[in-house]
Amino acid sequence: MGDFKTVGQQFVNFYYSTFDSGRANLAGLYRDTSMLSFEASEIMGTQAIIEKLSSLPFQKVQHRVDTMDTQPSNSQGGLMVLVTGALLVDDSTNPLHFCQVFQLLPHDGSYYVQNDVFRLNYG
Amino acid sequence: MGDFKTVGQQFVNFYYSTFDSGRANLAGLYRDTSMLSFEASEIMGTQAIIEKLSSLPFQKVQHRVDTMDTQPSNSQGGLMVLVTGALLVDDSTNPLHFCQVFQLLPHDGSYYVQNDVFRLNYG
Repeated sequence: MGDFKTVGQQFVNFYYSTFDSGRANLAGLYRDTSMLSFEASEIMGTQAIIEKLSSLPFQKVQHRVDTMDTQPSNSQGGLMVLVTGALLVDDSTNPLHFCQVFQLLPHDGSYYVQNDVFRLNYG
Repeated sequence: MGDFKTVGQQFVNFYYSTFDSGRANLAGLYRDTSMLSFEASEIMGTQAIIEKLSSLPFQKVQHRVDTMDTQPSNSQGGLMVLVTGALLVDDSTNPLHFCQVFQLLPHDGSYYVQNDVFRLNYG
């Protein structure tokens, strides 16, 4: 049980630190089969996903992870990771609560994001 | 794209209406391999999952679904469903925001819940 949780934790740390420092650099995590649902927009493939993330209307963003849970998603080493947290954009001091789920699939000793769903959780 | 979304919608409607009317009746949706992560508790198998859900310290509960997103999770017809919403317990008027993700796997013309992660999303 310990090992997949470590993978999930490492992924989450890497994902949000990369997102917050330069989200175009997330390209290496996606594939042409990857799916992103972002606030009701549905996008497939690395290029379209990175274009979507890059087009989000803020310059600065900071994610805070409050909870994360990882479960095996299949018998080939896939992982499902659910994250809840908050984000601050630009100079706002009003944190926006979000949840995001990923399915990570293993390939060549690493993992890529096959499924990605992001939703703000309004109060 | 339409069909798997219909399955996701039907599942979500059934899941929360059953939860709110008698949560022990969710047993038919789980298997002995099913995993539930509920607010940091990790549970496996139908019986343990139903015991956990039945032991939650409220008598009445009402879920409100605000958003749901469904994506295919594998090439065998699996689905990943992310739900955000709020729930009211007993006579509280303070909605608790939650997010929950399911992975549904097909079997014999129906679906069961292989993965289930529930988290409250605190303000």
